[in-house]
Amino acid sequence: MNQYRVLIDANDEKGLVHIVSTIFYNFSLNILTNSEYVDKENNKFFMRSEVEGEIDLEELKLTLVEALPKETSIEVISPKKKNIILMATKEMHALGDILIRHEAGELEANILGVVSNYAHLGSLVEKFNIPYITVSHENLEREEHEDKVIEAIESFGEVDYIVLAKYMRILTPKFVSRFEDKIINIHHSFLPAFIGANPYKQAYERGVKIIGATSHFVNNDLDEGPIIAQEVIHIDHTHSWKEMQRRGKDVEKVVLSRALKLALEDRIFVHKNKTVIF
Amino acid sequence: MNQYRVLIDANDEKGLVHIVSTIFYNFSLNILTNSEYVDKENNKFFMRSEVEGEIDLEELKLTLVEALPKETSIEVISPKKKNIILMATKEMHALGDILIRHEAGELEANILGVVSNYAHLGSLVEKFNIPYITVSHENLEREEHEDKVIEAIESFGEVDYIVLAKYMRILTPKFVSRFEDKIINIHHSFLPAFIGANPYKQAYERGVKIIGATSHFVNNDLDEGPIIAQEVIHIDHTHSWKEMQRRGKDVEKVVLSRALKLALEDRIFVHKNKTVIF
Amino acid sequence: MNQYRVLIDANDEKGLVHIVSTIFYNFSLNILTNSEYVDKENNKFFMRSEVEGEIDLEELKLTLVEALPKETSIEVISPKKKNIILMATKEMHALGDILIRHEAGELEANILGVVSNYAHLGSLVEKFNIPYITVSHENLEREEHEDKVIEAIESFGEVDYIVLAKYMRILTPKFVSRFEDKIINIHHSFLPAFIGANPYKQAYERGVKIIGATSHFVNNDLDEGPIIAQEVIHIDHTHSWKEMQRRGKDVEKVVLSRALKLALEDRIFVHKNKTVIF
Amino acid sequence: MNQYRVLIDANDEKGLVHIVSTIFYNFSLNILTNSEYVDKENNKFFMRSEVEGEIDLEELKLTLVEALPKETSIEVISPKKKNIILMATKEMHALGDILIRHEAGELEANILGVVSNYAHLGSLVEKFNIPYITVSHENLEREEHEDKVIEAIESFGEVDYIVLAKYMRILTPKFVSRFEDKIINIHHSFLPAFIGANPYKQAYERGVKIIGATSHFVNNDLDEGPIIAQEVIHIDHTHSWKEMQRRGKDVEKVVLSRALKLALEDRIFVHKNKTVIF
Repeated sequence: MNQYRVLIDANDEKGLVHIVSTIFYNFSLNILTNSEYVDKENNKFFMRSEVEGEIDLEELKLTLVEALPKETSIEVISPKKKNIILMATKEMHALGDILIRHEAGELEANILGVVSNYAHLGSLVEKFNIPYITVSHENLEREEHEDKVIEAIESFGEVDYIVLAKYMRILTPKFVSRFEDKIINIHHSFLPAFIGANPYKQAYERGVKIIGATSHFVNNDLDEGPIIAQEVIHIDHTHSWKEMQRRGKDVEKVVLSRALKLALEDRIFVHKNKTVIF
Repeated sequence: MNQYRVLIDANDEKGLVHIVSTIFYNFSLNILTNSEYVDKENNKFFMRSEVEGEIDLEELKLTLVEALPKETSIEVISPKKKNIILMATKEMHALGDILIRHEAGELEANILGVVSNYAHLGSLVEKFNIPYITVSHENLEREEHEDKVIEAIESFGEVDYIVLAKYMRILTPKFVSRFEDKIINIHHSFLPAFIGANPYKQAYERGVKIIGATSHFVNNDLDEGPIIAQEVIHIDHTHSWKEMQRRGKDVEKVVLSRALKLALEDRIFVHKNKTVIF
Repeated sequence: MNQYRVLIDANDEKGLVHIVSTIFYNFSLNILTNSEYVDKENNKFFMRSEVEGEIDLEELKLTLVEALPKETSIEVISPKKKNIILMATKEMHALGDILIRHEAGELEANILGVVSNYAHLGSLVEKFNIPYITVSHENLEREEHEDKVIEAIESFGEVDYIVLAKYMRILTPKFVSRFEDKIINIHHSFLPAFIGANPYKQAYERGVKIIGATSHFVNNDLDEGPIIAQEVIHIDHTHSWKEMQRRGKDVEKVVLSRALKLALEDRIFVHKNKTVIF
Repeated sequence: MNQYRVLIDANDEKGLVHIVSTIFYNFSLNILTNSEYVDKENNKFFMRSEVEGEIDLEELKLTLVEALPKETSIEVISPKKKNIILMATKEMHALGDILIRHEAGELEANILGVVSNYAHLGSLVEKFNIPYITVSHENLEREEHEDKVIEAIESFGEVDYIVLAKYMRILTPKFVSRFEDKIINIHHSFLPAFIGANPYKQAYERGVKIIGATSHFVNNDLDEGPIIAQEVIHIDHTHSWKEMQRRGKDVEKVVLSRALKLALEDRIFVHKNKTVIF
């Protein structure tokens, strides 16, 4: 028997669960897990089901499309490894964590390659037989540099997600719209606290007792995209901002990998700058 | 429009969601939230729905009973305050927390009364105009004492839950079976670590770096009942077991109140010494 | 034997520990705990010792003053209950938590009284035989109202700390400077995120996955004072801002009580809008 | 100027801080950090100082030895990279995490080599140019196998710590006593809950709501050695034990790396099966 993921994003109205569960029943599908959420404020309905059976995937999708209201977004997915590209700058912890998980077979993903604006991480990445492309930003206008980065990304073929594993450059709206809802970033603060540069320094100066990290989809407003996952750790007055930075790395890498896993398992719906996560 | 909670506990088979959602649809019920879980190991299906509409509660229940497999447990509940009795010994923190929540209107519950084996907490409880019955255990056999406690409990009338807010006496199987799945306890350790007496002292002696509290339903095996909620805090070598005990109180009261809230909102299913919580 | 707390706040220079420990030795004091911290950035030295012995408190203080550099702040404290005043508006959870702790004997404090701009919490407070003064802000200019609040506070006599247990009014610089470093507030967000009004609504709208609470000393800049304690809880897309508010209460009360305890035990040093906590 | 760590483990008596700080003063040492702890129950005194200056290390040590009571353990350490050996079986996450940290220069350690009872992890380790020795346990008595493991370890030369990064074999007292207080293990449960084999399965069966990991020194009693660090994560009824195991990996690797860092920075004192950590 095969397993499928069914994702439904609809305007809420009475009877949606009834319609979908009846179709599943008619297709002799066994429901493994079923998650629904109604966002009353926005009158939205989200549903993610894992089902088991022997079906024609396109036929199921068509049946759902015909039965559900227009403007409903419907996906029927046969789980397989997604293609991802990693981007990084100089720091090794977040990139290294994903490489090890990939090597251990923990990720439902193929890493097509790594793109960086520095050569520093090349020797690490190449140990794992993953292509590494350095696209230096030196002496280039931002757009010029990004055009070269896009070229590098496209050289790897079709990509499902781009993971910014501490890629420390601001992306232009052009880049972001090119890969809409496909770019996952890790920001090294508990957003929306400490937006912008050097959040650990900001945290140190404010004298907070907790620091954190936030993984989010990238949109046009820096550090303002839909949040996927957050985590924090306690700190105290003895920690310099360098020490916060060091401790923060453990949070950053765990949160980024957690967000990536959610994306790879098709567990994230995005609506109006917020996420619904099943 | 009225709101109802529908609780279904069935042996798993294909089409259950279909059956239930079709009935909801036929009754013109609007689904507010819907949670399902399939326990594959035990072949069990659990479902909790919050629905909105104008129905005859008994008719809905009958329709569900007829449509669903035999041996399915079905409850249709019109949310209202449940009747609870608190039991305590000498410590004030867990009892006080529930009293304040009750006073603040946070709890879907009427506190019928408090039963204790000591008089210590009487003056606190009576401030809130809640009856307090002292049933001293002195010079009594365990069963004799419990008979008097049961008498005190029954003097308050029908009870939905008995909350042991640090009631420091072991209950006999007779008592437990008298109130099966109705007794919620807080144990002052991260169970199953440190079962039995003085868990903070045990924790201190073992040199752990984290302590916790566990709320669970009481069954015949001491500290072995189905776990509802757990929480922990970090400690270090500077904490004596008295200090752990003091810090632990904050965890105990929060965990017990959280478990109580889950019970009052009909969010807990029990199966084979484990809980499913929606 | 008596116990004392010695608090030293000095500009850092070599030999400070040597000087202090030699004096303790000469006074035959036994060191129970000793905490030091050097803030290199600001060249500051902080030390808190708990010592045991039989001394003349003033003589020890004089000896320390003579031996340590000028401009050093030195306190020798014989631990006793501090006098506190609570301020609140309508919410019961934070105030109630402190009242219960006080009743249980957990706090090194006498609650002199409670001041509120509403009468709502009077019946709760008076259960505990604690005076409650309502100072309505209706039809009053902010300063006029505050003058009456100050009058109410002063009617209770000398006060060590004023605890804002969800007192929902902004204080003027005049009020703040009248009780400098004596006012402890609880803000219902993980500061500096969501400064200002209705932080739970802000958190909901931003779609964060974690919410928190922050206890801090109040200074002239709203929500900008030195942070004493912070704590967070995880939330998800199913939580409305009302639900976040409800869950947040458990964090707020725990954090405020934790900060109060630190203050009562003389564990907090303030320097340049940050705290050192031993 | 050079930095030194001074570690003192003494029977408690009055004046110890005075003696040590006077010696530091006489050697013109600047105290960077100073941590002391008195264990009253066992009448023990522990102190760890980071000092800065230009001294003859042996002379400082001798002066301390002469001034402090007999039976005091005194170490004066000039910080440098420690030599460590990793042991593993088949799982990659904990080993991989340490390899990446090592590669990133995060660890004060040289990894001399990795010893495993399987060949599985060889290709990963060798990517990092670190020697990997497979010592299969097949067809060998436990002691025979351990003798070969010891031989492999000794082939790398002098070792400061042996890190069991999910080495899934029980060690004999002979092995343990050969490397007393030098073996750091990660146990995949919140000890002392779920001692022994397959703790995730045990946790699943007990229906706990939190799982964790524990790093500890290894002594002769399995899973009973002095605890260095613990951490937990929340789980719920939807998690199978396989899923717990998967999620637990993130806790295991973080806790093991945290414990290793504490050891490398000479922050751990062991006394009577408990740790004091500065």
